[in-house]
Amino acid sequence: MEGDSSLLEEATAGPKLEVGEEGGDLENNTLHQPLLKRNRALSSNPLALVGAKVSHIESLDYEINENELFKHDWRSRSKFQVLQYIFFKWTLALLVGLLTGLIATFINLAVENIAGYKILAVVRFIENKRYLTGLAYFTGANILLTLFAAVLCVCFAPTAAGPGIPEVKAYLNGVDTPNMFGVTTLIVKIFGSIGAVSAGLDLGKEGPLVHIGCCIASLLAQGGPDDYRLKWRWLRHFNNDRDRRDIITCGASSGVCAAFRSPVGGVLFALEEVATWWRSALLWRTFFSTAVVVVILRAFIEICNSGKCGLFGKGGLIMFDVSDVVVTYHVMDAIPITIVGILGGILGSLYNYLLHKVLVVYNLINQKGRIHKLLLALTVSVFTSVCLYGLPFLAKCQPCHPSAREICPTNTGSGNFKQFNCPDGHYNDLATLLFTTNDDAVRNIFSSNTPEEFQTASLLIFFVLYCILGLVTFGIAVPSGLFLPIILMGSAYGRLLGIAMRSYTKIDQGLYAVLGAASLMAGSMRMTVSLCVIFLELTNNLLLLPITMIVLLVSKTVGDSFNPSIYEIILDLKGLPFLDANPEPWMRNLTVGELADAKPPVVTLCGVEKVSRIVEVLKNTTHNAFPVVDERVVPPMGLATGSTELHGLILRAHLAQVLKKKWFLTEKRRTEDWEVREKFDWVELAERDGTMEEVAVTRDEMEMYVDLHPLTNTTPYTVMESMSVAKAMVLFRQVGLRHMLIVPRYHEAGVPPVAGILTRQDLRARNILLAFPHLEKIQEQRKEALDISSQFSK
Amino acid sequence: MEGDSSLLEEATAGPKLEVGEEGGDLENNTLHQPLLKRNRALSSNPLALVGAKVSHIESLDYEINENELFKHDWRSRSKFQVLQYIFFKWTLALLVGLLTGLIATFINLAVENIAGYKILAVVRFIENKRYLTGLAYFTGANILLTLFAAVLCVCFAPTAAGPGIPEVKAYLNGVDTPNMFGVTTLIVKIFGSIGAVSAGLDLGKEGPLVHIGCCIASLLAQGGPDDYRLKWRWLRHFNNDRDRRDIITCGASSGVCAAFRSPVGGVLFALEEVATWWRSALLWRTFFSTAVVVVILRAFIEICNSGKCGLFGKGGLIMFDVSDVVVTYHVMDAIPITIVGILGGILGSLYNYLLHKVLVVYNLINQKGRIHKLLLALTVSVFTSVCLYGLPFLAKCQPCHPSAREICPTNTGSGNFKQFNCPDGHYNDLATLLFTTNDDAVRNIFSSNTPEEFQTASLLIFFVLYCILGLVTFGIAVPSGLFLPIILMGSAYGRLLGIAMRSYTKIDQGLYAVLGAASLMAGSMRMTVSLCVIFLELTNNLLLLPITMIVLLVSKTVGDSFNPSIYEIILDLKGLPFLDANPEPWMRNLTVGELADAKPPVVTLCGVEKVSRIVEVLKNTTHNAFPVVDERVVPPMGLATGSTELHGLILRAHLAQVLKKKWFLTEKRRTEDWEVREKFDWVELAERDGTMEEVAVTRDEMEMYVDLHPLTNTTPYTVMESMSVAKAMVLFRQVGLRHMLIVPRYHEAGVPPVAGILTRQDLRARNILLAFPHLEKIQEQRKEALDISSQFSK
Repeated sequence: MEGDSSLLEEATAGPKLEVGEEGGDLENNTLHQPLLKRNRALSSNPLALVGAKVSHIESLDYEINENELFKHDWRSRSKFQVLQYIFFKWTLALLVGLLTGLIATFINLAVENIAGYKILAVVRFIENKRYLTGLAYFTGANILLTLFAAVLCVCFAPTAAGPGIPEVKAYLNGVDTPNMFGVTTLIVKIFGSIGAVSAGLDLGKEGPLVHIGCCIASLLAQGGPDDYRLKWRWLRHFNNDRDRRDIITCGASSGVCAAFRSPVGGVLFALEEVATWWRSALLWRTFFSTAVVVVILRAFIEICNSGKCGLFGKGGLIMFDVSDVVVTYHVMDAIPITIVGILGGILGSLYNYLLHKVLVVYNLINQKGRIHKLLLALTVSVFTSVCLYGLPFLAKCQPCHPSAREICPTNTGSGNFKQFNCPDGHYNDLATLLFTTNDDAVRNIFSSNTPEEFQTASLLIFFVLYCILGLVTFGIAVPSGLFLPIILMGSAYGRLLGIAMRSYTKIDQGLYAVLGAASLMAGSMRMTVSLCVIFLELTNNLLLLPITMIVLLVSKTVGDSFNPSIYEIILDLKGLPFLDANPEPWMRNLTVGELADAKPPVVTLCGVEKVSRIVEVLKNTTHNAFPVVDERVVPPMGLATGSTELHGLILRAHLAQVLKKKWFLTEKRRTEDWEVREKFDWVELAERDGTMEEVAVTRDEMEMYVDLHPLTNTTPYTVMESMSVAKAMVLFRQVGLRHMLIVPRYHEAGVPPVAGILTRQDLRARNILLAFPHLEKIQEQRKEALDISSQFSK
Repeated sequence: MEGDSSLLEEATAGPKLEVGEEGGDLENNTLHQPLLKRNRALSSNPLALVGAKVSHIESLDYEINENELFKHDWRSRSKFQVLQYIFFKWTLALLVGLLTGLIATFINLAVENIAGYKILAVVRFIENKRYLTGLAYFTGANILLTLFAAVLCVCFAPTAAGPGIPEVKAYLNGVDTPNMFGVTTLIVKIFGSIGAVSAGLDLGKEGPLVHIGCCIASLLAQGGPDDYRLKWRWLRHFNNDRDRRDIITCGASSGVCAAFRSPVGGVLFALEEVATWWRSALLWRTFFSTAVVVVILRAFIEICNSGKCGLFGKGGLIMFDVSDVVVTYHVMDAIPITIVGILGGILGSLYNYLLHKVLVVYNLINQKGRIHKLLLALTVSVFTSVCLYGLPFLAKCQPCHPSAREICPTNTGSGNFKQFNCPDGHYNDLATLLFTTNDDAVRNIFSSNTPEEFQTASLLIFFVLYCILGLVTFGIAVPSGLFLPIILMGSAYGRLLGIAMRSYTKIDQGLYAVLGAASLMAGSMRMTVSLCVIFLELTNNLLLLPITMIVLLVSKTVGDSFNPSIYEIILDLKGLPFLDANPEPWMRNLTVGELADAKPPVVTLCGVEKVSRIVEVLKNTTHNAFPVVDERVVPPMGLATGSTELHGLILRAHLAQVLKKKWFLTEKRRTEDWEVREKFDWVELAERDGTMEEVAVTRDEMEMYVDLHPLTNTTPYTVMESMSVAKAMVLFRQVGLRHMLIVPRYHEAGVPPVAGILTRQDLRARNILLAFPHLEKIQEQRKEALDISSQFSK
């Protein structure tokens, strides 16, 4: 009898791959291709680029599973348990804010100190005119730091590379990318960020902070890392997709808040850019998290201002205060403001376009293996270092202006007038921008009341350099945020425009830099309200609000007329099955019945099913849920009619639990509620990731039966086969489903009560078009008009 | 033959009452009761208090109606039309912002000038010691102004009374209250607001401005007032509930923005407090509207600052700038801040409780007729006038401080140190707060760096007075906002607390007043993020943000543990069928099938139906949609099986159109698409309010047939009868439905293919509990725990 258990081990390999989080990365599979192949029509085998590898991904399920066990659990929950649950929810929000704030401070401290000591050491070489030694030291230090970050990313957590925001966005849309929120990812992200930012690479810690916030939230909600989870019962109340979604939203806003010290902006960022589902309750809880972050940051700023944080002074915690500028503007200023907006839109969409191309090429290089990844990162690092160190020598030394408010020249710390290679009493304006941390560079270029500080040539060099760096740096295998590169680029052309407009406008050049940065962000990331509030809180100047709004509106409109936002481009590049808010118009002409016909027939189970059939189904399919059908019995006499009716939907994970617990019946009968409750705990059923390795079913057991009724969700959402795909998709997305059953318009004997199951992949426009090419023709005809329509309605 | 047409006129009386906007108010009906009767189980006869009358209300329908005509329209829309539609959508958003901004400025100008001249005249009497004449003049002027506002409201637009925000909230939830967004309401609201605010009543123009914004939006979207609508074809593209919902959301945020000069706050207010459905596209468009409002307001402020607006100087446009305060606070300040928050929560919920009681009593008075309404308003006006004028005499005159930044004492304009009855060189601190416009009072009590200005006794009198006025003023028949009364109350106790804490804290007393106002608003209205941003933009001080957040969080939490928000209380009081976001837990134990059994059986129509049957159905029912069922035909041979299947759902309005157009067939047959398109225009079908007065059907025509297929929405959302009410409600609300069909689990010959129709009323917890009293028992048992749970999860 033992011999037969190998059958099942084979059988369980499938589910493990799908269910387990650790089975995700397929390093050695045959799918080595730059972009994912797109020739699967209505596939149920979802693959996506996660980190740099092609992985299986899973959908999340926000539906209320109404089976007997869960219902009983709800009924038996005491008042105390409800209170405990609420209390715990708020405690989690508090902890997420607290930890995100602490980690953000730690990253800031580390970056400021590492980069600070590095620059100080190089300055000493420069003071002694040992320029080449300085270059060697600078480049060497940067290579080491980059190597540290890249090795961490490449060897331990490939998913920690990049900003992580697209994956967070996908998660909140209902796409669970494996290994995205684990403890390794978190640690690598933290230390990788420190290394990469200290190395002076053209990337920010803002995107990674969002990812870090989400990792913390996810880990807290599941009670620790995968293998060492706390098994407290009350903690498990959170082990469902809906509660995790909420807490991860809190994490995302905390991350933005920690990055920009912008609590309201953080909440709005999560709302506008990241979250797919939203409700008032969430607004309130995310707000609480971000408030905690701000309190933590403020406390550390107070401590650090008293000089207890090493080199970390007023700098570090990114905050580009321009509040001391008296903003005066008139109707005529609308013209330069509109120009900034238009330029931002054009440059932003151009950046999106070029970055897309670069990422495709980088993907090809990264595919070749770990060494290639490391070499790519190091090449970029060397190039960056040489440019940052070498270019300032091209700039002409400027004499210090006697009226300057800040010390001039300085060589230590984060001053606005760097001496670099210049004689005393002079400063090097390009070194002020390049030979410093990115945060300081932004602060310097935003500096107001300094109209004569930067030469046009220096700003031009700065702009061109950061355009190149912004394109080549993002795709390398280190944690990298997009916010800061875009701010740097944008502020450069903003300030340049300010110089060009000098004679026409009274607006300060520092403000032009701010507006330039805002416009490029709107042109590339296409956010509006959240960006506006972030800039408001960042620059601490409310009078800027109206002109910021105009700039953002103009540049988003211009950008939208060229291409989608950078996050959408990355989502698409990675093949994450993100479900858009609006159905395509041609979806109205297709019914879900036609969609179901294009798919393989549904695999259904009986209410009381043979064990062998369950094993076979688990082995041969990769579906995550199966409709359970019953023989129809006419109630008064209990006569079987020979036809079937739908009982509900059972999840693969629950079937696995049944096999694991060996809850088998010797005869074919319905069970009582208490029998199930004795055997199963709803807490176990709420777990998504039940590994199945230790399951072995004997040949005798194969002939036994299982009563699936109590484990079946009796109220799955259904649509009739005549429903249009457009409306089915609205339902699917609005309610947050994973499976949607298609029922026939008319049931009769011989016709199965379920015509099909729709999943996320089936409702994606691209997949449908592959299965129904004639629709593409319609689409082509109307493409132009629709393009415009979809862009404007965004 | 003619004689028979009276039958139909009778028949159409029903639909007219339901469909037409003008048939709403039932002044003479028998439902004169303080609150609505609650003994209707699962009623399909929805009534609510609109203005002060009981009216029929209708639901809105956000579903995509997929019938042949609309589908054909979509297919035939050219690229130009799509662009036109988009362009027009943005033009509307622009116009809404523009007009709201202009009207807000007009109201401000009018109020400042009317109230200004009134006060100037009274001041002259006081200077001559003619105190009683002053009182008479003051009271007389106020009575006239109140009378003007009240007469407008009572005689022309009862719906213009009150703030209008609850009705806007209900509209965006899908409840169409009649006469709410008409042109009369708009005009009465504008002039009524001017009268009521100038009369010195304890009410604001902020709530009414939100309603005004929505009225403008609604009127623009439908092309003008009901009777004089522009009939441009392209304008009619907007004649659907979804586009109107979007534009009214823009109107609501523009209103808030105009009231507080807070563009981001306006958007967030609409998002957090008002809107039920939200999408990113809307964020972007509302933001555009509020940006326009801000530009308009700024332009007028510039004009008015140069003295061209009469008495309207820097005052008027409400803006309580406290940006010149240097905010320094430490960890220890958390204690007074928490106390402010707790007090705000307690007082806010107490205010909600008491206001509820007062409104019930006022309702009884208002029911008695127009004269009673007017008398009530005048009584409140006289009481207010006497208090505002008389109480300052109780205050001790204070000597002017030589270091005061403002002129002291003043008697004209909006100074901070009013002389009133005091000798030269002295000021009356209570007159500074009372004998002025409400906006100025807020500005004065928020004034910073004036720690010695107000005496404790004066503040106490101010606080008690405004507590009383805040309770008695809100329910009278004039346009009245809740924001300002709450700000006045809150600032008083905030400042009092500041005086009490003087020795412990360094926070300015003006800031305490601001925090007090914020806490009371959070305690009563339960908003968080939007309130925070509004206060941020209002006070122009970003450093206040963290402490404001803490205050708001604390007071909302405290308030939520006592009762729901004031808007929810008003919604409930008015009987508006607002659909909450979260289903009650006991709804999981009830299936929609059971719900359908408690309702009368569904009225269905055949695919090709006799005219007489349609007339009969329209006459005898008040339903707004009817399922259309077809005889089931087995496809290959065209054999009828004797059983029926669901074809779709047809709207009452479309049936009315059929009768109106007399689109009858002599024999029972299916029609071709082109036949329908010749007769019907989708534009006409999109109209909701087709009056039916001119329809007369002859006896011959009664025997003819109508093919309903092309007019039927073939893809209504359906749920199976085994679906739980909880999940059905989630679907209903998330997708924004008006009707949801219940289909049986198994169809067989003889069983109708539709088991029932669910509407908004059927899914309201209160109605279900009336029909299923045993569920109430479960609810009672779990009430306490759930109460807490629902409060915290908000």
